[in-house]
Amino acid sequence: MTPVVATVIGDPCGVGPEVVLKALATGQPQAMSRPLLIGSLAALEKTRAACGIDIALRAVADSVDARYQPGVIDVLDQVPLDPAQLVFGRASAACGEAVLHWLETAERLGRAGVVQASIMAPIDSTAIRLTGKLKELDDLQPAGTWLLRVSDGLRVVPIAEHVLMRDVPATVTQANVLALLRLLDDTLKRFGLAQPRIAVAGLNPHAMGPEDREQIAPAVEQARAEGIDASGPVSPDAVFRQCIEGRHDAVVSMYHDQGQIAVKTAVFEGACSIYIGLPYVHLSIPHGSAYDIAGKGIAQHKSMLSAMLTAAALAAGRGFL
Amino acid sequence: MTPVVATVIGDPCGVGPEVVLKALATGQPQAMSRPLLIGSLAALEKTRAACGIDIALRAVADSVDARYQPGVIDVLDQVPLDPAQLVFGRASAACGEAVLHWLETAERLGRAGVVQASIMAPIDSTAIRLTGKLKELDDLQPAGTWLLRVSDGLRVVPIAEHVLMRDVPATVTQANVLALLRLLDDTLKRFGLAQPRIAVAGLNPHAMGPEDREQIAPAVEQARAEGIDASGPVSPDAVFRQCIEGRHDAVVSMYHDQGQIAVKTAVFEGACSIYIGLPYVHLSIPHGSAYDIAGKGIAQHKSMLSAMLTAAALAAGRGFL
Repeated sequence: MTPVVATVIGDPCGVGPEVVLKALATGQPQAMSRPLLIGSLAALEKTRAACGIDIALRAVADSVDARYQPGVIDVLDQVPLDPAQLVFGRASAACGEAVLHWLETAERLGRAGVVQASIMAPIDSTAIRLTGKLKELDDLQPAGTWLLRVSDGLRVVPIAEHVLMRDVPATVTQANVLALLRLLDDTLKRFGLAQPRIAVAGLNPHAMGPEDREQIAPAVEQARAEGIDASGPVSPDAVFRQCIEGRHDAVVSMYHDQGQIAVKTAVFEGACSIYIGLPYVHLSIPHGSAYDIAGKGIAQHKSMLSAMLTAAALAAGRGFL
Repeated sequence: MTPVVATVIGDPCGVGPEVVLKALATGQPQAMSRPLLIGSLAALEKTRAACGIDIALRAVADSVDARYQPGVIDVLDQVPLDPAQLVFGRASAACGEAVLHWLETAERLGRAGVVQASIMAPIDSTAIRLTGKLKELDDLQPAGTWLLRVSDGLRVVPIAEHVLMRDVPATVTQANVLALLRLLDDTLKRFGLAQPRIAVAGLNPHAMGPEDREQIAPAVEQARAEGIDASGPVSPDAVFRQCIEGRHDAVVSMYHDQGQIAVKTAVFEGACSIYIGLPYVHLSIPHGSAYDIAGKGIAQHKSMLSAMLTAAALAAGRGFL
């Protein structure tokens, strides 16, 4: 049995439904997984018509009703959504509410083991804010998770996300580095990497500073004593290129921009982000809801297709594509 | 008259002389500049024979003796160097001393206006340390200069070099950012860019922090009031990709690794570093003396050729290649 990969269709008025349907219309995700959509059948049908996508859809009211039949995509549709709200390119609280509900559903199904992977299609920050329930999209990150960015051979996860630079050195502790090394090693093994080679970036230029010696190096040493193939601290300006060239399977970075500068400067196709620390695979894709081109049939579905195939491979323990 | 571009041949026992001669053997630098070598004729002749490079050389004892004749390269050879010291791949204090002397000569000729650009071929840190005169190669950076890294369309200069991350926020002051903006604007104009578009990276994630608001933004505002086409603070994880794509001519970065992660992760051919703040163009190239392959004729001269052509273009005020 291939893994069930549930995709939340994203904001119904953005390009989410379009890229989801286009990716599934290739037939490729179905060869590696049992796809399930979480969202509104009405929104998907409206997008299907507007964009001229040839795919059969079928609503189900409960996850147990999904049939995963060849040629028909099951849509778990549990939130009544007023069709009047479905206007391409218009943010609404109703759509924001629906998205939050769908995301909760995906998490519940993931934690229950009903789905082995979930994907978050592009949501819209304005719609989410209109609900009054969340201030920032960052708040959607499940507690106790770290965000692993994957961009071709470059894979990097920071010990913390949005921290002011003046507060960064205090977060670079042996405990924080070691905790993430253990989790990342365990996660990559479940993804199918037999003995992941994990590099730890230093904090300071050329990894030559007090935190590098006193916090990072002992964490790496302890991890190695536990059988983790950790190395470092590696000079921050060298470690990401080394990862791209295959010398490491992943990099633990010391602050948000350290890894993000590498990921966003060396752009590769098929980038995605994976929340690690969950019992299932949970991915998001790097582009937004693109209200300006929603419903026009011109959105690129490469990122979504790549995410669906990556989710299927990781959930099956077959490693990165 | 084309500019005089003086190249210090680098450590005589490394690949410096080889890449210099190979680059000149293409004839391309001579079409844009009057090349002068600063170094040892004996070392160059030894390399020429070992590597089978077809080029005519001529020693001169003083810069006024250079003839810049077609087909013959002038070598300013003022340091007696014991031929017994010329062993490929062996570091020696004698060679380190010679290199330091040649670099001083290049700086003197540059400041005197005799040469309009100088290039530093690969030197060797061991040989330099053996002289007992310098602890680090970084000490070779002339006082009052900043190091602009150029790698294809990506051009970035930090407000300071090797600073511990814990000390970085204190260096991000309005005065430091403004001083570098003024110097960079002036430098790029002399290089031939009519109205350089300079982006300033933020310090914190998404450029949303106290230093971004209180120090960087006012510096950018002041620069704009002075007629400099400055923008920012820009999110650090976005600004370097924007520069590669041509939206900026150069980026001012807030710390060493911020720019270096971008430069070293997105590798392009023909990278070089330019010391700005001098009355002449002064470049170094990014690879080392490569003792392990010295004298074998297999060193790549692309970086050196690119540096020679870039130096010629910038010294002539014709902009980046």
